[in-house]
Order: sequence, then C-alpha cells, then structure tokens
Amino acid sequence: MSKSALVILAPGAEEMEFIIAADVLRRAGVKVTVAGLNGGELVKCSRDVQILPDTALAQVAADQFDAVVLPGGLGGSNAMAESSVVGDILRRQESSGGLIAAICAAPTVLAKHGIAAGKSLTSYPAMKPQLVDNYSYVDDKTVVKDGNLITSRGPGTSYEFALRVAEELAGKEKVLEVAKGLLVAYD
Amino acid sequence: MSKSALVILAPGAEEMEFIIAADVLRRAGVKVTVAGLNGGELVKCSRDVQILPDTALAQVAADQFDAVVLPGGLGGSNAMAESSVVGDILRRQESSGGLIAAICAAPTVLAKHGIAAGKSLTSYPAMKPQLVDNYSYVDDKTVVKDGNLITSRGPGTSYEFALRVAEELAGKEKVLEVAKGLLVAYD
Repeated sequence: MSKSALVILAPGAEEMEFIIAADVLRRAGVKVTVAGLNGGELVKCSRDVQILPDTALAQVAADQFDAVVLPGGLGGSNAMAESSVVGDILRRQESSGGLIAAICAAPTVLAKHGIAAGKSLTSYPAMKPQLVDNYSYVDDKTVVKDGNLITSRGPGTSYEFALRVAEELAGKEKVLEVAKGLLVAYD
Repeated sequence: MSKSALVILAPGAEEMEFIIAADVLRRAGVKVTVAGLNGGELVKCSRDVQILPDTALAQVAADQFDAVVLPGGLGGSNAMAESSVVGDILRRQESSGGLIAAICAAPTVLAKHGIAAGKSLTSYPAMKPQLVDNYSYVDDKTVVKDGNLITSRGPGTSYEFALRVAEELAGKEKVLEVAKGLLVAYD
C-alpha cells in the first residue's frame, strides 16, 4: 500500500517549496493530502500565487500520515508556529515515530512547538539563530536527516529535500526513477 | 519601470515549472501576469495541484508583454499548441522582438505555431524528435538562448531557466541577488 503524506499549506507559504514537495511525492506514488492551515479555501502564497488545498487542516487533523511536511516561507512558517493544531499534529507524529520534514523557515515551527529537541537539523541560513540553542545545527549540508526528522535549506534545495522524503516513503529505486524523470541529479 | 511577463497557465501544466517561473520573476521585480488558457477559473495542473490564475488569457491577449513564458507539462503544452489565441500571441511577440521562453514540453508549442523556425533550442529530451526538423537542437545545455528565444529542459532546470529569463528583464545584478536568496548557484 502506498504511503501517505500531509503537506500543510499556510498563507505566505513559499509556493515553490510547497509545490515541489507535493509534486515530487506524488510522482513517487505517495498519497499526498494538501491541507489548508486556515480552511479549505484558496491560500495566497508568498509571491501571490493562489493555490486551492485538497482540504482544510481541521478535517484531517486527527488522521495519521506516514509523513508530515512543512514548506517554508516566512509568513507560512510564522502561521504554523502559532497554530495549536499544527503543534498537536507534530507532537502526535513525533510520539508515533512518523516522519517530520521541514524546509527553509519551517524548522522554526518545530522549535516553537518543542519538537525533536536536540536533534541535528538545518534551515534557511537566516533562521539559524532561532535554532542553535535547541538543536545541533548543520551548516554544510543541503538536506539533514536525523532519525525521523528531515530538514533542508531553501528553494534551491527543494528538489533534493522532496526526493529525500520520497526515498523514505517509496524507496530508493522509485526515487531514482523519479529523479531521472525530473532531470535532477540524485544519489 | 519594471518589465512585464505573461505566464500562460494551461490545464495539465507542470506546476513546478509554472510556479518557479512566476515566483522567480516576481522576486526579480518583474510584473508577472498569470493567465489561465481557458479562463480565469482554477487550473488543475499535472500532479493535481489547483492554481487560480490572475486573469483569463482572453482578457490580456491583446496586451504587450516584455516576455511570454510557456511552462511545460504534456497536457498543458498540448493545450497551448492547439490554441489559436496562443498562436496569435506568439506571432505578435516574435514580430515585435519580445522575449519568448519555453521549457520542457513547451518548445513543441512553438513548433506547432511556426515560431522561431531555424533557431537553436532545447526541450525535455523526449520531445526532441518533434523539434529536430525545424530547429537546431541542443542536447548538452540546460538553458539555450538564441536571440529573443530562451528554452530549457525540465523541472530540474527550472531555476536556471527562470533566472535566465529574469536576467534579460531585470539585469544581471538583480538576478545574482535573487539567486543568492534562493540558495541557487548562478553565474
């Protein structure tokens, strides 16, 4: 049975980071649910692209997913950091041993909700000061995996991030096939 | 005054290729109009992400833009190839010396409408057989510029493609700043 991923779409999300995660995971055969943080209506992203989520986050907040993916973008990350629903989902995901993935500004959402404390992670470089106290911060890798946590740096590392998450859910062979189709180097 | 770009969004467009073009051009200060091929309603892209265009293509078909950008995706490209409105826009863009940019499957739209015949271009590798007769096909570059035509290969070359188009419209200095913010290597 194919694995499942929840991709949270908040107002002000970085639309490239969001869409590369959703698209690459779907190419890998993962069942992706795009859930709007504030409901099922259109979400205005950081560069004004408007995207319709599959559903409202509240509708799927009690469901279990193999992975929970947090795209970056400062506005979107701040909104997810302030959401108690996101905090509940992340805490449940952590206790059940499910995958948590965050890119760019989104690792600060983990910090705000007290998730994965002490683990190795990375983020958009400017977010480092908010993360160094509670995590083992990695500067020199584009994607960092520590147990069930996968983090990455920004738009330019989004393909590698999405492929790394897809590899966990769909396996190496499938992901190499997807990467080839994307014309992305991956090993 | 900032330059303008029309990005055409057709059903079945590759959402990553579409959104990277729109987002990167906006980051570079280009005035981007996202126009839905079949109207101003939601557009379902190749991996089921639904995006609301800024307007319907018919509403802006008579306007002049500094660049016309065609994202790939097989469904989207086939729809643009069959559209007489797209053909009219491209022919006017070509005669006025405006920039035309196409990625992945979208260079076949140019072939279908008889645009830029004889120029050097590239595309998604599988589209090569549809292009070799009318163009000087380039296999070994991720982005090809020949006069006012810029073409590229697929999702994995989308950042370089969008930055190359942005460089034409906003200049090298601005684009280097955008690339740095994206964490994308560009020179």
